[in-house]
Amino acid sequence: MNQSVTRSEIRVRYRETDQMAVAWHGNYIEWFEVARTDWLRNLGLSYRELEARGILLPVLRILCDYVRPARYDDILVIETKLQSYNGVRLAFSYIARTFQEESVVASGQTEHTFADAELRPIRLARREPEIHRLLEG
Amino acid sequence: MNQSVTRSEIRVRYRETDQMAVAWHGNYIEWFEVARTDWLRNLGLSYRELEARGILLPVLRILCDYVRPARYDDILVIETKLQSYNGVRLAFSYIARTFQEESVVASGQTEHTFADAELRPIRLARREPEIHRLLEG
Amino acid sequence: MNQSVTRSEIRVRYRETDQMAVAWHGNYIEWFEVARTDWLRNLGLSYRELEARGILLPVLRILCDYVRPARYDDILVIETKLQSYNGVRLAFSYIARTFQEESVVASGQTEHTFADAELRPIRLARREPEIHRLLEG
Amino acid sequence: MNQSVTRSEIRVRYRETDQMAVAWHGNYIEWFEVARTDWLRNLGLSYRELEARGILLPVLRILCDYVRPARYDDILVIETKLQSYNGVRLAFSYIARTFQEESVVASGQTEHTFADAELRPIRLARREPEIHRLLEG
Repeated sequence: MNQSVTRSEIRVRYRETDQMAVAWHGNYIEWFEVARTDWLRNLGLSYRELEARGILLPVLRILCDYVRPARYDDILVIETKLQSYNGVRLAFSYIARTFQEESVVASGQTEHTFADAELRPIRLARREPEIHRLLEG
Repeated sequence: MNQSVTRSEIRVRYRETDQMAVAWHGNYIEWFEVARTDWLRNLGLSYRELEARGILLPVLRILCDYVRPARYDDILVIETKLQSYNGVRLAFSYIARTFQEESVVASGQTEHTFADAELRPIRLARREPEIHRLLEG
Repeated sequence: MNQSVTRSEIRVRYRETDQMAVAWHGNYIEWFEVARTDWLRNLGLSYRELEARGILLPVLRILCDYVRPARYDDILVIETKLQSYNGVRLAFSYIARTFQEESVVASGQTEHTFADAELRPIRLARREPEIHRLLEG
Repeated sequence: MNQSVTRSEIRVRYRETDQMAVAWHGNYIEWFEVARTDWLRNLGLSYRELEARGILLPVLRILCDYVRPARYDDILVIETKLQSYNGVRLAFSYIARTFQEESVVASGQTEHTFADAELRPIRLARREPEIHRLLEG
């Protein structure tokens, strides 16, 4: 399985705060999405082009653990890894840290299936053998 | 022109607050969108069905004036009217008030064009004469 | 433990769709937040007032499983239950169904701790014995 | 008046698309907010620190004109200028272009007042003469 690790920088936007004066917890789902797009891009895969070719990556499950709050204007670094891949499904893991302190803010996982434009699962090894090999590393 | 007025109730969600402890200003754009969907529904038009028939209503311009802040859990009432319609373009006006006090929180306008699935403007009178007549009132 | 079950109706907003033409998966986190506020309100607890009294309910963990996509303008019904409560921490479970078909769209859990304004955990039994009794049912 | 011009890069996130397969129009309000934070930062002003000192910049009005749609994964460049400043109120103008083509996607303005933590307008010349001089250029 591909062992690449990418680090995505996200600066917390004002809109992303809530009245607890922290980054609203649901934003991590959006940031993890940005981070896994970076992970794919680092492999030479544009998720935009994948979708244009009819290969979608819908989400089956998300999980996020919150360790301590991020604040407005904080720069977070999200470390992304492929956690599993079996030819149809794949999972990513994410660790978000603050840029300065390097202590963990949150961590999470997302599970996906490769699907066609009608959101039916597809076997990547047959449909896109080159991408399959990239993910197998 | 159709003179209908609709009143949409929106309860401010926690996610919609920011660290100023008010409803983040950009949310009104989302709420106006909900309100004009209600206005169309009140006319018997489902925007969902319009899109399914290839009739889109992209936004050309938005404007919003903020009078005083809304707070978490406030119930806002948004009053929506058709402001202009010329067969291709149309504009809506919105006034948001708090449910209890009836004082104005924000007001705004949005301008739109009817367009096909490729976002090219269409003349509604020719393409959808019934909807055209509804809007003309 | 309190066995109340609440049902919250959420209509999918246009902003909440993505270019897969489904409700973007992260929105469920926002909807679950609305749903648990309804659950508390049903118990006679306003989360707004709790926060004003310095009692916060930050999120420690979220989990969401996606069964099938929700679409624009769908009315979802989210069924919310208290899953556990030990005097400091509590967890909620959620099941989202489409209004018409009653088939499950997504399900999830969130875990929380009661905390003060500085986000330090508090023992509810001592600080707010009445709320503690309500949650114990 | 300060004549600085800043250029902020924003990559359109998947969450920011809608089922028209374009960037949802309301996102520009969020992106303009990021862009004016960059403009202030370029002047040596951290909006985060301003807020910590009790100086807020709530929005009085927003306006946005949409020229052509932005797409998922597009890199937008937002050019930001101070448009007016009179000691209490200030306005910014924004032009969003795609990175590659340099054609205009959208343009807008926002109007603000300097305010204290209770959202009451403040005269910056008296309260913060150094920031006042920076804005006067």
